[in-house]
Amino acid sequence: MIDLFIIKVGGNVIDNPELLQTFLDKFAAIPGKKILIHGGGKIATRIGDQLGIKSNYVDGRRITDAATIDLVTMVYGGLVNKQLVAQLQARSCNAIGLTGADANIIPAEKRPVKEIDYGFVGDVQPDMLQTGPLKALLEAGVTPVFAPLTHDGNGQMLNTNADTIASSLAIALSDRYQVRLIYCFEKKGVLSDPNDDNAVINLINKEIYQQLLENKVLSDGILPKLQNAFGAIGNGVKEVLIGHADDVLSNTTGTVAGTLIC
Amino acid sequence: MIDLFIIKVGGNVIDNPELLQTFLDKFAAIPGKKILIHGGGKIATRIGDQLGIKSNYVDGRRITDAATIDLVTMVYGGLVNKQLVAQLQARSCNAIGLTGADANIIPAEKRPVKEIDYGFVGDVQPDMLQTGPLKALLEAGVTPVFAPLTHDGNGQMLNTNADTIASSLAIALSDRYQVRLIYCFEKKGVLSDPNDDNAVINLINKEIYQQLLENKVLSDGILPKLQNAFGAIGNGVKEVLIGHADDVLSNTTGTVAGTLIC
Repeated sequence: MIDLFIIKVGGNVIDNPELLQTFLDKFAAIPGKKILIHGGGKIATRIGDQLGIKSNYVDGRRITDAATIDLVTMVYGGLVNKQLVAQLQARSCNAIGLTGADANIIPAEKRPVKEIDYGFVGDVQPDMLQTGPLKALLEAGVTPVFAPLTHDGNGQMLNTNADTIASSLAIALSDRYQVRLIYCFEKKGVLSDPNDDNAVINLINKEIYQQLLENKVLSDGILPKLQNAFGAIGNGVKEVLIGHADDVLSNTTGTVAGTLIC
Repeated sequence: MIDLFIIKVGGNVIDNPELLQTFLDKFAAIPGKKILIHGGGKIATRIGDQLGIKSNYVDGRRITDAATIDLVTMVYGGLVNKQLVAQLQARSCNAIGLTGADANIIPAEKRPVKEIDYGFVGDVQPDMLQTGPLKALLEAGVTPVFAPLTHDGNGQMLNTNADTIASSLAIALSDRYQVRLIYCFEKKGVLSDPNDDNAVINLINKEIYQQLLENKVLSDGILPKLQNAFGAIGNGVKEVLIGHADDVLSNTTGTVAGTLIC
């Protein structure tokens, strides 16, 4: 019996006021314990442009320089996060906005410089997560809402992948809860035919996953999500669900839409 | 026996890197339960200027328009708040950054429009404070750090006076804790001679306060702080201490520097 829902929503929903309102309605309606992890969205780029902070790419990878980490701390950790909290409060969902620095919940390491210096990007240290205060909040009926930020323990905030924060929290909280980790994205689920948006594979287990890999059915975009999902399953998370926000939040018991990984 | 310190620090310390480091060292060193409330500082004005958001005044009072509430949510609730959290974490102080919207701790009402429309400014609703999750955090050894922001319960963030947040929290938490509320400011304390920075009055009780008022000894600037202080004392707060951060945080037991109000 699932007793904790951990839901990651991406920038595409954050950026779209209509999608966001629908998402928040559905999220707030989920009964029981839940955690939201939100991505960034394009608003940081827009505000950065106005402040003369250029998006910086090396080999197609985004670099987080000193100006950019301050920008995303401000926009993701402040504006986006607190607006989500206020809007969830308006829906009687008792949200609390956090980053990984808060209560030292998600310690991270600044990514080591190899071929590329990613700047102030944090790699989560999965064994170091501090879940005590987080559990106290959940038990007090509060819903944590995480911005995609962590810290290095030496006073520096770090930009961190929201998918990774979601799976790390799911794994760390599996010692106490039966966790369903839900990744909301643009598609209805994992597709058996990348050109047919309705060709959703409803269930993937290890055997089916191997078969899909061998038959080269999966698109490049979905592979990291599935690896992440099986990583979570292999570390105690009960279920991972991938699909469109409209579907995957509607039915939290019984049959589910999207792709269930278990 | 004081068992909770609630400390308000103003923008003048936030704006000055050296003062801030000293302040954080002293704050982190306070043993036991504590809460920090920080003011804004000039960084919001600086970033607002870059974004073309003008500071707006009517009759010398600052107005918080729609662009400005987003600006301060971003800068105070994001940048300043999370940098303080990360820097306290680096000092082994397990800080958590919050606004009044988080866990609905400080519900507020948008200030009614009378002669002046202050815009998105929140007046704290003292009887509505939700201290349950806050107490859970304090009991878990976590140190809440509040930005000067609240919300209206309908999805809107509100700009709110940090002194008022500090006294409201102190009053609301007095049902469980023996609270010392500390206001850090530029002077060493309440002065018996405004031209002599060393003429600190060490103790003010109701009788002395009346006497000081009758003798017109007090400067205009200190009057709201003293009214705030006696309001807190009259509502269960054990002690209020007013003085310079260098002095008032150094000695949390025994004799204290600054002006003690009780």
